[in-house]
Amino acid sequence: MIKGVGKMNAQNLFWIGLVGAVIALLFAVVQSRKVLKFSEGTELMQKIASSIRQGANAYLKRQYSTVARIFAVVFVILLILVATNQLDNWFIPFAFLTGGIYSALAGFIGMKIATSSNARTAHAAHESLNRGLNVAFSSGAVMGFTVVGLGLLDVSVWFHILKYVAGYDATKIAQTMVMFGMGASFMALFARVGGGIFTKAADVGADLVGKVEAGIPEDDPRNPATIADNVGDNVGDVAGMGADLYESYVGSILATFALGASAYAGADKAWNAMLLPVAIAVVGVICSVLGTFLIRTKEGASQRDLLGTLRKGTYTAAILAAILAAPLTYFILGSMGVYVAILAGLVAGCAIGYFTEYYTSDTYKPTQKLADSTETGAATTIIGGISLGMMSTAAPVVIVGIAIIVSFLAAGGSLSTSSADYAELFNKGLYGIGIAAVGMLSTLGITLATDAYGPVADNAGGIAEMSGLGEEVRNRTDALDSLGNTTAATGKGFAIGSAALTALALLVSYVDVVKGKIGGEIDLALTNPAVLVGIFVGAMLTFIFAALTMSGVQRAAQSIVVEVRRQFKEIAGIMEGKTDPDYASCVDLCTRGALHEMVVPSLLAIVVPIVTGCILGVEAVVGLLGGVTVTGFAMAVFMSNAGGAWDNAKKYIESGKHGGKGSDCHKAAVIGDTVGDPFKDTSGPSLNILIKLVSTVSIVFCGLVISVSQFFLG
Amino acid sequence: MIKGVGKMNAQNLFWIGLVGAVIALLFAVVQSRKVLKFSEGTELMQKIASSIRQGANAYLKRQYSTVARIFAVVFVILLILVATNQLDNWFIPFAFLTGGIYSALAGFIGMKIATSSNARTAHAAHESLNRGLNVAFSSGAVMGFTVVGLGLLDVSVWFHILKYVAGYDATKIAQTMVMFGMGASFMALFARVGGGIFTKAADVGADLVGKVEAGIPEDDPRNPATIADNVGDNVGDVAGMGADLYESYVGSILATFALGASAYAGADKAWNAMLLPVAIAVVGVICSVLGTFLIRTKEGASQRDLLGTLRKGTYTAAILAAILAAPLTYFILGSMGVYVAILAGLVAGCAIGYFTEYYTSDTYKPTQKLADSTETGAATTIIGGISLGMMSTAAPVVIVGIAIIVSFLAAGGSLSTSSADYAELFNKGLYGIGIAAVGMLSTLGITLATDAYGPVADNAGGIAEMSGLGEEVRNRTDALDSLGNTTAATGKGFAIGSAALTALALLVSYVDVVKGKIGGEIDLALTNPAVLVGIFVGAMLTFIFAALTMSGVQRAAQSIVVEVRRQFKEIAGIMEGKTDPDYASCVDLCTRGALHEMVVPSLLAIVVPIVTGCILGVEAVVGLLGGVTVTGFAMAVFMSNAGGAWDNAKKYIESGKHGGKGSDCHKAAVIGDTVGDPFKDTSGPSLNILIKLVSTVSIVFCGLVISVSQFFLG
Repeated sequence: MIKGVGKMNAQNLFWIGLVGAVIALLFAVVQSRKVLKFSEGTELMQKIASSIRQGANAYLKRQYSTVARIFAVVFVILLILVATNQLDNWFIPFAFLTGGIYSALAGFIGMKIATSSNARTAHAAHESLNRGLNVAFSSGAVMGFTVVGLGLLDVSVWFHILKYVAGYDATKIAQTMVMFGMGASFMALFARVGGGIFTKAADVGADLVGKVEAGIPEDDPRNPATIADNVGDNVGDVAGMGADLYESYVGSILATFALGASAYAGADKAWNAMLLPVAIAVVGVICSVLGTFLIRTKEGASQRDLLGTLRKGTYTAAILAAILAAPLTYFILGSMGVYVAILAGLVAGCAIGYFTEYYTSDTYKPTQKLADSTETGAATTIIGGISLGMMSTAAPVVIVGIAIIVSFLAAGGSLSTSSADYAELFNKGLYGIGIAAVGMLSTLGITLATDAYGPVADNAGGIAEMSGLGEEVRNRTDALDSLGNTTAATGKGFAIGSAALTALALLVSYVDVVKGKIGGEIDLALTNPAVLVGIFVGAMLTFIFAALTMSGVQRAAQSIVVEVRRQFKEIAGIMEGKTDPDYASCVDLCTRGALHEMVVPSLLAIVVPIVTGCILGVEAVVGLLGGVTVTGFAMAVFMSNAGGAWDNAKKYIESGKHGGKGSDCHKAAVIGDTVGDPFKDTSGPSLNILIKLVSTVSIVFCGLVISVSQFFLG
Repeated sequence: MIKGVGKMNAQNLFWIGLVGAVIALLFAVVQSRKVLKFSEGTELMQKIASSIRQGANAYLKRQYSTVARIFAVVFVILLILVATNQLDNWFIPFAFLTGGIYSALAGFIGMKIATSSNARTAHAAHESLNRGLNVAFSSGAVMGFTVVGLGLLDVSVWFHILKYVAGYDATKIAQTMVMFGMGASFMALFARVGGGIFTKAADVGADLVGKVEAGIPEDDPRNPATIADNVGDNVGDVAGMGADLYESYVGSILATFALGASAYAGADKAWNAMLLPVAIAVVGVICSVLGTFLIRTKEGASQRDLLGTLRKGTYTAAILAAILAAPLTYFILGSMGVYVAILAGLVAGCAIGYFTEYYTSDTYKPTQKLADSTETGAATTIIGGISLGMMSTAAPVVIVGIAIIVSFLAAGGSLSTSSADYAELFNKGLYGIGIAAVGMLSTLGITLATDAYGPVADNAGGIAEMSGLGEEVRNRTDALDSLGNTTAATGKGFAIGSAALTALALLVSYVDVVKGKIGGEIDLALTNPAVLVGIFVGAMLTFIFAALTMSGVQRAAQSIVVEVRRQFKEIAGIMEGKTDPDYASCVDLCTRGALHEMVVPSLLAIVVPIVTGCILGVEAVVGLLGGVTVTGFAMAVFMSNAGGAWDNAKKYIESGKHGGKGSDCHKAAVIGDTVGDPFKDTSGPSLNILIKLVSTVSIVFCGLVISVSQFFLG
């Protein structure tokens, strides 16, 4: 072994996090300048783009002001908790704020660039498919690297404050910072739920009256909800996703901090264990930047070529990161077992992505069979989609299960309770689970870019349609859009897989924090009724959360349906294209609906774990975290994949199968797609955030919960 | 305290179980004779009833022969396990067989009497509503008391064999008999899944082509699938339910045996703790018999009166049982805390029943709102039903959670780990959870009667329609049917609640058995990755099982759709009523489809826990049991209630709301109802059995799992 390997003095090397942050943010600026150099096209296109921009801005402004009020209340509660010694230090309330602000900022910047790129993409696609890809992908890259840059910045700045201003040791830094994820998660949940309700209310509302009742095509300018629909893509699929992935990225690093400090408690090596996730993230940034340079196409490239170049970029970045992680892990930690854990994370992410694609892409059997089931009507289409989605939970669960066991064992954990140093090895193994999630998300810069460019292409298609750019341009933007769906599957795999691993890491951190506070052991055995009831409550929380977000979309969509019907009836000349419909009223309705519906489900994530803990004690909270993580994971996969499959089955039929557009099969498929909308874009992705938010909330409020429950239970 | 209280010499009093069994079975014979005295009506009615009888007989014959082969294989495997010392004794394989045979018998007898009562009910309803109720309810009572009688018989006979022939002590009897539930559960799962697929394939197939495409009413004799549909009611809703409830009843008693023996291990009081569930069951039989005498109506009674008399019967039986349980518990166990646990079970069952009714009956808001959502089409109807169903999981979870905690604490358990005798109190508390389930099911005789009479009324309606008995008779049978839906909600509450409690009791018994076998402690903490992965696998098993049963219905239904379309096209004169369609071919298709589709999901329940255990050890199995119980419970509630609400929303619209029959709202509601069919009658109820079967399988195979996993994990 090379001298000093694994004994490197890590504690003064955390500045590399700042360097990584600067690289990522600078790259985002470069990409953003590149995008803005393109033309926004004709006056009409500029006008439409400006309406979308205004709508998105207006929505985000109101969303942020609503959320700000809730944040203010929670901030005050946190201050009170610190003042009454239920929380350890004054940094936590402020870190709660910065987490929320950065998460919001990540979404806001993503939305800004997306609403500036949609018309540009349409215009560029007018010239060539490749130019369109170029603009859209660069716009996605701005968001990808902004998320990563802000995440590293937040983590690094707070680390340095705690280390050099507060003078904390590794354990204290880790146990404090694991609470910092709450602000980001809370903001992300609002953004996902609110944005998700907005976009799907507009989408469902527009489709139900426009496509189904009036028989006009999607994005037709005569549809009063069409601008709202395009605004929705930006506030939901872009701003919501940005806040979401920011939360995932930061959450995985912070959870690994906590597990690292716990695995090497008291030893200098704790610093090394904490440096490793930061170092891997920084290497991931650099590999992602390199990967983006590979994404360039020749004129006249086919869709297959385009997919090839996107894959080349992301895969190269991932492989490069995987290779570089080996010496990094070796030098920082001296343990190649941990490296295996990182690899397990990366491979698991890719594998989940593959199965996501398998179950939702129309090039594979499941979605084709789903399209077949439209032959016997809407009911069998729905049953088919639900069973497809439920079936699709098998692979991700098995993959995550294998990843958990492999990373745990590789990092040094043991499943045999008989060994003497079981507890110590146990903590080392858990660190492996945390670092696997970091490995999964290390190249988030580029995977998020391929994910975030989809909505831009979708918007570009809308603008092309509304400004009459002709079928050829629309076909090109459609090609970009459907390409985005395919690459997004991989991104989803990473997001879902990392959410499960991070949530488990947070669960373990919670137990660590609680044990530290009460200074004793707790009975976490599954046979403990408190733990069992906690698991029940966790599963229930998942079902209720999914129900509320879905019914939120439904209520908001119904108000859009009523409004669009009213406009068609009362405003003369809309259908003849002589009068413009009142787009703004639909945007406004969506905004009000989304803000109204997002509050209750989001607050549940805070209230349920605290109330459960106060009544039944910390054991029940651990059960709840386990229940919500497991059920939430399975439910998220089910809903996302069912929704994705319905969407693509519809597109498959529209491509001419089973009678094509307008056939009875198509009508059944449209019903499936409409049901799938809130599944895949509201409830599903929000569940990924929920499972982490519940954990961080439990950690932050555990002092309070312990005090109250000891009062009740004695 | 009266001398000797709680110290009664219980071990020689188990003959009361045999007495209870004889009372129940004799009462079933009396009721059955009463039913058979009624006339079967016109020749046409007799012919139709005979077709249904033949179809049901033919199906059950083939189902039983398929299942018999699978039982034979498992029987041989069990023999091998005993021979190789992986299983404790030779009784287990044979008890596996008797459990299966009795469970099948319960279903078979229920089906026999139901297919003999349908035409009699129709004919009696022709005379008056009250006579119709009389026949249908007596038929339900035959099944209710057969299930209870056979259950007590099986338990008592085996108890006496093990005590007096084998000479076992209390612990050994309890630990052996807890494995006896596997045969009943396995048979019940086949019956529920196979019957459920049969009935819903026929129903969905008949509706999709008959109602939706051809526009002919339900049960119209021109529909080739109509006999299959009526056969389905008998093999699914009757035979499946009989086998299912037999399994629940026996399972709850056996699990309580195990917990009782463990709570008072080595002490004479173990016999008392085991006698109590039997005694409560016997008292329940007597109270149920008394309750049935209260069910009599005056001529000209309204539907409200009918509901009133049914409720009077069941509530009186429950209250009587609750009152009598107090002295019983006092004398047998000397602990009134355990009595509180029994009450908690009874109250929880009623409360879950109330919420089931609240969410699925059209007299309450949720279903009415669901009917409103048909105004915006099928997609919002589906979203509305799914979110209603998911939302409805909240109340049952909270109720079961409270029941668990209350019965645990009341029976002597403690949630505070700091007390010195924590472990001992813990086991006493767990006994409370088991006995709560027994309390819930004590009056199963009468609650099952009110549940099982529904399908008979449904069938009577079909026969009335097909034999042209006129609108008045049909209205009466419809009234009986819809009344059955309401009373069935209470029955469902008991079935679901007891399933959750029994599954938890079995989980705890599993841990007991495993600890006994390996002679040491195991790490069941939620932070153990093996436990966590087990929970993941348990949740996944739930989703996959639901997916497979649902898609089984879909595939079988699609073959019916194709066949019915073929007959309409190829057989001239069907639509004009000149030629009889080929009913038998549809019955045959359903039979083949159901048998083909039932095997894989049922085998999963055996294979998954064994494989998981062999690879990851017993800790993962405990996790799996926890995961499948919790997620399965929530999923079962979700699916049953969503399906029930869609069904009743459709009926609500058919009663004239939202434009009534034939309106666009009605079409959307029919789609919802069709999706709900496999939800509420196939997947939902099967999940209740699944969660118990997985537990008993794990217990039976734990010797094997321990050997194999120790080989792998060291």
